Amino acid sequence: MYSQSMYQLGSKRSVIRETFEYGRKRKAEIGADKVFDFSLGNPSVRPPEIVNKLLKEIIDEMEPTALHGYTSAPGDPATRQAVCDSLNRRFKAGLTPDFIYMTCGAAASLSCCISALCCKGDEFIALAPYFAEYKVFTEAAGGKFRVAMPDPDTFQIDIKNLRKEICKKTKAVILNSPNNPAGVVYSEKTIKKVCKLLKDKSEKYGHPIYLIADEPYREIVFDKMKVPFLINYYDNTLVCYSYSKSLSLPGERIGYVAVSPKAEDAKGLYAAVMGAGRALGYVCAPSLFQKLVARLPEVTSDISVYKKNRDILLGGLESFGYICVPPQGAFYLFVKALEPDAYAFCEKAKKYELLLVPGDDFGCPGYVRIAYCVSTAQIENSLPAFKKLIEDYKNDRS
Amino acid sequence: MYSQSMYQLGSKRSVIRETFEYGRKRKAEIGADKVFDFSLGNPSVRPPEIVNKLLKEIIDEMEPTALHGYTSAPGDPATRQAVCDSLNRRFKAGLTPDFIYMTCGAAASLSCCISALCCKGDEFIALAPYFAEYKVFTEAAGGKFRVAMPDPDTFQIDIKNLRKEICKKTKAVILNSPNNPAGVVYSEKTIKKVCKLLKDKSEKYGHPIYLIADEPYREIVFDKMKVPFLINYYDNTLVCYSYSKSLSLPGERIGYVAVSPKAEDAKGLYAAVMGAGRALGYVCAPSLFQKLVARLPEVTSDISVYKKNRDILLGGLESFGYICVPPQGAFYLFVKALEPDAYAFCEKAKKYELLLVPGDDFGCPGYVRIAYCVSTAQIENSLPAFKKLIEDYKNDRS
Repeated sequence: MYSQSMYQLGSKRSVIRETFEYGRKRKAEIGADKVFDFSLGNPSVRPPEIVNKLLKEIIDEMEPTALHGYTSAPGDPATRQAVCDSLNRRFKAGLTPDFIYMTCGAAASLSCCISALCCKGDEFIALAPYFAEYKVFTEAAGGKFRVAMPDPDTFQIDIKNLRKEICKKTKAVILNSPNNPAGVVYSEKTIKKVCKLLKDKSEKYGHPIYLIADEPYREIVFDKMKVPFLINYYDNTLVCYSYSKSLSLPGERIGYVAVSPKAEDAKGLYAAVMGAGRALGYVCAPSLFQKLVARLPEVTSDISVYKKNRDILLGGLESFGYICVPPQGAFYLFVKALEPDAYAFCEKAKKYELLLVPGDDFGCPGYVRIAYCVSTAQIENSLPAFKKLIEDYKNDRS
Repeated sequence: MYSQSMYQLGSKRSVIRETFEYGRKRKAEIGADKVFDFSLGNPSVRPPEIVNKLLKEIIDEMEPTALHGYTSAPGDPATRQAVCDSLNRRFKAGLTPDFIYMTCGAAASLSCCISALCCKGDEFIALAPYFAEYKVFTEAAGGKFRVAMPDPDTFQIDIKNLRKEICKKTKAVILNSPNNPAGVVYSEKTIKKVCKLLKDKSEKYGHPIYLIADEPYREIVFDKMKVPFLINYYDNTLVCYSYSKSLSLPGERIGYVAVSPKAEDAKGLYAAVMGAGRALGYVCAPSLFQKLVARLPEVTSDISVYKKNRDILLGGLESFGYICVPPQGAFYLFVKALEPDAYAFCEKAKKYELLLVPGDDFGCPGYVRIAYCVSTAQIENSLPAFKKLIEDYKNDRS
């Protein structure tokens, strides 16, 4: 029959999806404004208006077979040049277009990089809390998935924990900053420690340990936070990017991989990424959206909405007594559950129409994720429910 | 280091790509109109005008976050419904939207199906001549690739050869009609024989042998040719479709998988296809183009151009003495090389600025593929070159 592992992946609904589906039903029952659905990381802010304007211009201007035809497998040359120019302008990254590979979004970027790197017996380490699909992509490529737990107070990387997970089979560390679900940005100090550790271990084991930088939230940062560009800190780096969050285009599947030109045998590594794309059935990234991002590599949707949401939500929850990890970027708030079992806590929250996601799937039990990429009104209207929820727990204890 | 098999896939240029790149350089040297490039299967006919019109309408009408946001993983419900309705209307296929999975094109459809089916040690059989990427997808999924040679005169399926390749490890047969590169459409009589054989062998080995129908050229047929819809002939069928060729949108990456509702444990099989999509990094098919195909499931670009091209090319080549497989569909002509080594023949053809692709990569040495999805003018202008080429061979022999 068919593959049981694929069946498992396709039939087991993620908790996020289940919560979202529950929310849809519940909204139909009691009204959309009465359900506070914080389950999905679907950007609530519209794409910038220039997006639709440019799409129509490109459709009108370009010869149709050239517009909708295959681009070369690594991407349209003008698009790769524009991405490269933007990265060099912002980060002095020393890239050339030969190291940019256009993809169908961040998931494709990640699965191509992991498949490109994975040899038999290889291990990949994620830094908790982490995006659950890292495990799926690693195991699909035939690798073993390991997790390094974070500093429990700050959710920054715990170098001791990471060191313990590295062994001679370690092929790569996957680093996601700004982080989903914790919202933290790893500081330059932390990044330097990680890079030093990986360099030492690479030397010790006589082979490169790669850094896979998963960066779809790069532009979504608050308070002028700087996100270190990892190619400038560590040679054996592959950057996975997507325009899903920055341009609010998650359904259009457009992103890229940037391979560090300073990586060991960088050209060969880039060829392996291309080969993985081919093996997984990616032919080229969607052509119209390649043409779009070539014209606006540095535009983003209105990030200030997420900051406003964060401030209202974080301020409210902390004033009620919740223990929160203050987010510096992305659009998620990671909050300590009010009982040890986050699933039970999420069930109880449903009584107040609050739909949250347990941290267990992100490798951090005892926490819940609140995706605040929703309307500011939903944030404001949900605060009384959060207040009642914590009071409920306090009353139980007294 | 990185994966050597992925490096090989990424660094070894296909003969098709190499020929195309040679053509680009040659055109720059002597002028585009003097080079007769027949290497690529990139549709030359424009998408129907309604495509760009509808794209702009959808962009204007839909709320932007809904338009560009994630669709559900198997696809937008309205799109799946439209695809399903169209297949039922045309083929009385008995499908429901639950069996339609929207994909990023035919390559994604195929890689998802093969990954969904492949268990350790499984074998997949392609019917030569075949699209070279079948081997890539099969081996990436961990399967073994086998080939059944065709009837050498008609390029229809040779049932005896197929029977010899089937064993207890056979998981699926991949069938591509209208065929790339031979242009043949497998007759209903042939299809019935194949289905009978697979049914008998499935019973013999006590497990289903699946039929993967790769159908991007379904609508590109001439002389009112009928292409049997395989779900109506064989229960354990998965149909892989793409709008790349029918709507001339190969760069936009939009297609689907239709799982037969009569397949053994059809719901489980569908879940495995979804799971494979997830494992390979596909999140959803591009949203804007999902919305587009929902509105024009039965429109195609102007197929009559391909028929005209076929008639001029086939008529010309046969009159010069070439031995051709008369194409009934797709936009390829498969021609016997004028010497045993098709690579050497293609090299010689370059002397006359004719860029052809050896059949070896399609599993049929001694033949060449001519992709006639080019301008009719190119076909007409190339005929004297084809005439000189065959005269050259005749002179050599005399």
